[in-house]
Amino acid sequence: VKNVIVTGATGFIGQRFIKQLLQAGHSVHALHNKPVTQLLFTETKPYPINWHQIDLFDQVRVDALVEKIKADTLVHFAWYAEAGKFWQSDLNLDWLAASSLLLKSFVRSGGRYFLGAGSCAEYDWSTPGVMQEESTAIIPATLYGTSKSAFSQIAQQYCKQSQVGFAWGRIFWLYGPGEDESRLVAYVIKNLLAGKEANLSAGAQKRDFMHVDDVSQAFAGIAEVEAQGFFNIGSGQAISVKSLCELIGEILDKKDLLKFASKESLNNEADCIYADISKLIASTNFQPRIDLQPGLKKTVDWWKNKKNASV
Amino acid sequence: VKNVIVTGATGFIGQRFIKQLLQAGHSVHALHNKPVTQLLFTETKPYPINWHQIDLFDQVRVDALVEKIKADTLVHFAWYAEAGKFWQSDLNLDWLAASSLLLKSFVRSGGRYFLGAGSCAEYDWSTPGVMQEESTAIIPATLYGTSKSAFSQIAQQYCKQSQVGFAWGRIFWLYGPGEDESRLVAYVIKNLLAGKEANLSAGAQKRDFMHVDDVSQAFAGIAEVEAQGFFNIGSGQAISVKSLCELIGEILDKKDLLKFASKESLNNEADCIYADISKLIASTNFQPRIDLQPGLKKTVDWWKNKKNASV
Repeated sequence: VKNVIVTGATGFIGQRFIKQLLQAGHSVHALHNKPVTQLLFTETKPYPINWHQIDLFDQVRVDALVEKIKADTLVHFAWYAEAGKFWQSDLNLDWLAASSLLLKSFVRSGGRYFLGAGSCAEYDWSTPGVMQEESTAIIPATLYGTSKSAFSQIAQQYCKQSQVGFAWGRIFWLYGPGEDESRLVAYVIKNLLAGKEANLSAGAQKRDFMHVDDVSQAFAGIAEVEAQGFFNIGSGQAISVKSLCELIGEILDKKDLLKFASKESLNNEADCIYADISKLIASTNFQPRIDLQPGLKKTVDWWKNKKNASV
Repeated sequence: VKNVIVTGATGFIGQRFIKQLLQAGHSVHALHNKPVTQLLFTETKPYPINWHQIDLFDQVRVDALVEKIKADTLVHFAWYAEAGKFWQSDLNLDWLAASSLLLKSFVRSGGRYFLGAGSCAEYDWSTPGVMQEESTAIIPATLYGTSKSAFSQIAQQYCKQSQVGFAWGRIFWLYGPGEDESRLVAYVIKNLLAGKEANLSAGAQKRDFMHVDDVSQAFAGIAEVEAQGFFNIGSGQAISVKSLCELIGEILDKKDLLKFASKESLNNEADCIYADISKLIASTNFQPRIDLQPGLKKTVDWWKNKKNASV
């Protein structure tokens, strides 16, 4: 049984991750900023979960809490993630600062394994195609990608000299129940369900989409065996945004509402970005389990039942 | 006339740098943590210098001060630098955090040019020889080097998206009056002056030593023309530590007190590290002015007169 601190514990990935930890019998200290009123699962109630509502920018309180918990593992999901704004926001600097000081508190408290959430935005996208942990250059094009990458570098070096295990999962694209409504899959499903048109770019760019349950399982797989180093977290497969949206259209039988090329593509959008996940699979017991079509179907069903769900 | 904030203003480089800024007619806001009682120069008293004693870890006060000053230039020297300890100290994380938040405050206050102090320790030393800004890989071996490098990356990206000028000076080795007594040149001079033996490693490793006045002038040269990008700050020449110590021994006519190989060399000490300074010289009006022998002579003279000096 591990004693694990999880930040961002009420987030899109975090709330699934803590459920998986609890089911595996670990002791979980779930750090969150917003009130815990909107969890996707309620069946964890019998599990002993320790909730701690805390502002991670409040260094004094964070340090005291981490010292008190004396966890052996820290899994850090919390970061600024407001759709559309997070790429350039200067809050990325605050999160870099807060993450560095959180890690320091954890190491000083006797922690021995750290797992952080990175991003495919750390990679150089100017040579599109498959992104590989060891061979693809780290040249982020955004402040978000740069801040994540910078934090991973100091975390790795600091953990190394402190003899603390270090792992960093670079997340590609994801979707699933509970996603923010401004994000692609949620936006398309919501509009099509309401009988409204979905305004989309031409959608030729290919991306790597993974169901959030699989993303969470991948992190759980890394943490379980305490794998070390950098890991891509993706499906390993590329699909065009257009094809992805058409899959949703077919599930809902409303392909006519998909209005491709009614929106400009973002500047400098790379034509194809997907993950090499051979290292993830070789280093853990994880395998992606949810194919895109059934995964989208589950997500559509969740939105249909949303009024009855806990979110 | 520029309005310039300088951090670490009472430090080894900083106090020389602010003197040069004042002499060039700029308005200087000198931020420092320790009391201003030990400056190497007193002849600046007629210049209008604005001293601000502040703890850079106190984000609220820093933010308010920077907003009030509304400087157009920020030159950031402050960092943890305790000899022997700074390479591995976890205070590097605090300085990364504080530096990121300071830069954010500066950009938000309307600042338009940032110049930071980096280190040759950011480079990959596993292929020894000349370090070049564009072609030598950034693979720091220490937490200090990694933290400096990580900060430079987010500073560059953040300045770029904010349309703020960015420059980063990577300092090699330095020496001069007022240096900490535990550092090599000061240690050797002090012991030899006292008639004591200096215990040294074999000293075969070659390094790039620059007089601190030249280091400071190089930063002033970059700031004056608002040069952008990464710049090596060094003499461009390599000398073995043994030869350097022998120069001091000759100046003091006490070579017999130099006890080479009486101390272990540090592990993994690269055999030769020096700076390519062609970019610095091409981009600014700076030229190194102080050769090693006269520079060491000046430093020895300063130590001889130390009792009469202001430090």
